[in-house]
Amino acid sequence: MSHEMTQLKAKLAELSDWNAINSLLGWDQSSVMPVGGGEGRGRQMALMSKLTHEKMTDPEIGHLLEKLQKQAEQWDPDSIDSAIVRVTAKDYADATRVPTEFVGKMTEHINTSYMAWAQARPANDFKKVVPFLEKTVEMSRQYAGFFPQGAHVMDSLIDMHDSGMNVATLRPLFKSLREGLIPMVDAISKKQQIDDSCLAGPFPIDQQLTYARTIAEQVGYDFNRGRLDTAPHPFEIRLHHGDIRITTRARENDLGDCIFSVIHECGHAMYEQGVAFELEGTPLANGTSSGVHESQSRLWENQIGRSRTFWQHNYPSLQAAFPTQLKDVSLETFYRAINKVQRSLIRTDADEVTYNLHVIIRFELELGLLEGSLNVRDLAEVWHDKYTSDLGITPKDDKDGVLQDVHWYAGIVGGSFQGYTIGNVMSAQIFEAAQQKDASITPAIAQGNYQPLLGWLQKNLYSTGRRYDAPTTLKRVTGQDLSVEPYFRYLKAKYSELYGI
Amino acid sequence: MSHEMTQLKAKLAELSDWNAINSLLGWDQSSVMPVGGGEGRGRQMALMSKLTHEKMTDPEIGHLLEKLQKQAEQWDPDSIDSAIVRVTAKDYADATRVPTEFVGKMTEHINTSYMAWAQARPANDFKKVVPFLEKTVEMSRQYAGFFPQGAHVMDSLIDMHDSGMNVATLRPLFKSLREGLIPMVDAISKKQQIDDSCLAGPFPIDQQLTYARTIAEQVGYDFNRGRLDTAPHPFEIRLHHGDIRITTRARENDLGDCIFSVIHECGHAMYEQGVAFELEGTPLANGTSSGVHESQSRLWENQIGRSRTFWQHNYPSLQAAFPTQLKDVSLETFYRAINKVQRSLIRTDADEVTYNLHVIIRFELELGLLEGSLNVRDLAEVWHDKYTSDLGITPKDDKDGVLQDVHWYAGIVGGSFQGYTIGNVMSAQIFEAAQQKDASITPAIAQGNYQPLLGWLQKNLYSTGRRYDAPTTLKRVTGQDLSVEPYFRYLKAKYSELYGI
Repeated sequence: MSHEMTQLKAKLAELSDWNAINSLLGWDQSSVMPVGGGEGRGRQMALMSKLTHEKMTDPEIGHLLEKLQKQAEQWDPDSIDSAIVRVTAKDYADATRVPTEFVGKMTEHINTSYMAWAQARPANDFKKVVPFLEKTVEMSRQYAGFFPQGAHVMDSLIDMHDSGMNVATLRPLFKSLREGLIPMVDAISKKQQIDDSCLAGPFPIDQQLTYARTIAEQVGYDFNRGRLDTAPHPFEIRLHHGDIRITTRARENDLGDCIFSVIHECGHAMYEQGVAFELEGTPLANGTSSGVHESQSRLWENQIGRSRTFWQHNYPSLQAAFPTQLKDVSLETFYRAINKVQRSLIRTDADEVTYNLHVIIRFELELGLLEGSLNVRDLAEVWHDKYTSDLGITPKDDKDGVLQDVHWYAGIVGGSFQGYTIGNVMSAQIFEAAQQKDASITPAIAQGNYQPLLGWLQKNLYSTGRRYDAPTTLKRVTGQDLSVEPYFRYLKAKYSELYGI
Repeated sequence: MSHEMTQLKAKLAELSDWNAINSLLGWDQSSVMPVGGGEGRGRQMALMSKLTHEKMTDPEIGHLLEKLQKQAEQWDPDSIDSAIVRVTAKDYADATRVPTEFVGKMTEHINTSYMAWAQARPANDFKKVVPFLEKTVEMSRQYAGFFPQGAHVMDSLIDMHDSGMNVATLRPLFKSLREGLIPMVDAISKKQQIDDSCLAGPFPIDQQLTYARTIAEQVGYDFNRGRLDTAPHPFEIRLHHGDIRITTRARENDLGDCIFSVIHECGHAMYEQGVAFELEGTPLANGTSSGVHESQSRLWENQIGRSRTFWQHNYPSLQAAFPTQLKDVSLETFYRAINKVQRSLIRTDADEVTYNLHVIIRFELELGLLEGSLNVRDLAEVWHDKYTSDLGITPKDDKDGVLQDVHWYAGIVGGSFQGYTIGNVMSAQIFEAAQQKDASITPAIAQGNYQPLLGWLQKNLYSTGRRYDAPTTLKRVTGQDLSVEPYFRYLKAKYSELYGI
């Protein structure tokens, strides 16, 4: 290894330890910190952000990269060191592109905008946030302008979360998804609705958490390198290879919420736990994109966790955990309940068939806002129209309409929604590929053994971390480009049987 | 405020936020971190220690202090700003005294010594640690030499934990304590022993924790600015004014362990929670010494928590929490059980009468080792002799003898034991003063209302933080110097009634 590479790796290893401290501050704040801790935590996180930004933009890294990019021309482009230089160069460039002054102005604006939204949402007062959102859209365009320009203004914003993806590839993909999903939801809505009252309990929280923990162990989340806590919004967070934590939410009257949140976060966490140890201490030691990350949470939550096979194996233990509540509920009733499809207004509560329609609406609105073809002041009305036409349901107000998601009011507009749907689409593609390429996976799953699947995913997907961007990673794993076909095959097989469509 | 004072305060506020991050890393490591987190946490804590040491020894602080010490000659010596300059100057001097090279060598030696002890203790092999401990004693002497010299080599080591205390004042105090305690333990050991089998349960852990939480709330620990978790070794830790956490331990077969650990840590935490908010962000925002800190954990644990009055009020709720286990156990039986006095080998399991004898033995051995009058190779034998003569019980081995405490094997020798006993002595002195000075305290306690006591302690003790050293703090609170009389009055009143001595 060259002297410069040794130096770079030492700096990256230190940076990754500082990032781990940052992650701990965030984990603690979002899960266990007492309310009184908030003010101090704000100061602590500001100090740490400043420090990690200084470390990340250390000019010495820039000098090392210049030399290393020359050296790397002689290296195997598929080697880990090549990937380290490539990814570090991108991260370094991204971190140094946005002028500090702009970051300050944007942070200030976002704080004000968030406070306005926090008041406007309960008051159902979209007008109140219009001037803030107008400024956010303007600043989002400026922000995008600091990065290398793609064909579309939103391309650089998408690339931050889903590197290698852009508007040109996503627009037709989302169009065909939309065209396939709308008639499917229509057909389901004409059928007899599923009764999911068996999930309403009440189920004591502690018992739900105890049960969910056994499920997490069963799918393969390693508790020696993680822990499970409760938090208002479930999340997964990586400190480093040995410490990758998850949180869940539990409600007495909704058994599915806790169980599927846990499996979902396990999917994210098992991806991170599976990153090859040799990448530790480098920027490659992370999932490669929002979409690929979400593909793993969705694969485990939906393809595995909401399958009949999964509950054929696990329903007896669930009944044993909740004997009074579930004694008269059959496996079939439970299986149908956890897969109920229903037109609804709130994205985060949506089932796996309607969910993508929520995301596609947001994606299209973001395009319009950033292109300038849609004015913020018309946004609420267009939102209503799109929900009526695409989801067949009209919001009664803006609170459960355009004001429902925090994203646009607490960050830039563009780039943060598409990953959810990319993930859903990829989840089916990757699961199909896994089953085709390793014949031991399907029979093992039927026995409640997820090790062959997890092992295959670790070897073919998780271990490579950020070595490859999202499209390359997908191609390496499945041999294909992103395609909606496996996802439709999955949805059609499952829901034609469930709803007789 | 002078320009220099403003600058100093800004630096101190930042330092206190860095220290809070350090504390969070420690809290997490000792309570909730998964085992896999250990290696990374070691690196993170090393980075943070280096950073906080750099911030603490920033030469700019030295320059500011030089100017401010001159300015302070004109200030009210009792003002907060005077105290900030005084305490910061001491902390700054202490942080810069020990050469970095020595710190490195000591850290390395301590790590090796700790590993040797971790193997030697289960193997009951004192000989194995002798060379390490010999070197530790030598390094402890050198370490002490970096600080301003008192009359005794151990004075500077004591001063680090119990500022204002020294060998000359502690030796006669401990002597009279020893002379009073030995006959008391003798007398008790001749009486009919108390049956404490009612504490052996089993009591489910979760229920113990739930109950202990209600007790913590009752005595006045503020959960909005803290939280309670479990940890192998109970502790209290301050992040900042709004976030002061405690941990406890719970064992199914020992009801007292959990309840009294919680009250003990509540005492530490209420002290910290009571530090005046105006001291926040300065080095004054902490308890003033180990001894004063321990006086508050002991006051709440023993003077309050192990009193008959406390359980006259709380025993019904305890019985309700554990109806099967305690339905046939009378209040009197329970009260006697939690105050059982028994000669035992292990300091951390000792009752409040014998406890100080354990500490005094260690204090005397430390004096001998540092003075050179006691050789490490003779330590195990002298330990045996002292336990036989002072505690009337002879260790069967070194595992439960000289190898029982981690302190000497994972740190310097000297300074870390005396605080426990100073705390016990002060606890009685302070509680007596509180009751004498505020007539509303005693009747309120009889009603299960600890607010008047807590309020008095906050106003007279907790609020001043590190503004005054330990002897001055005690004098301000009680009007007296440290004295064993109130402690003996307390022990005699309580145990003559319990044991008929």
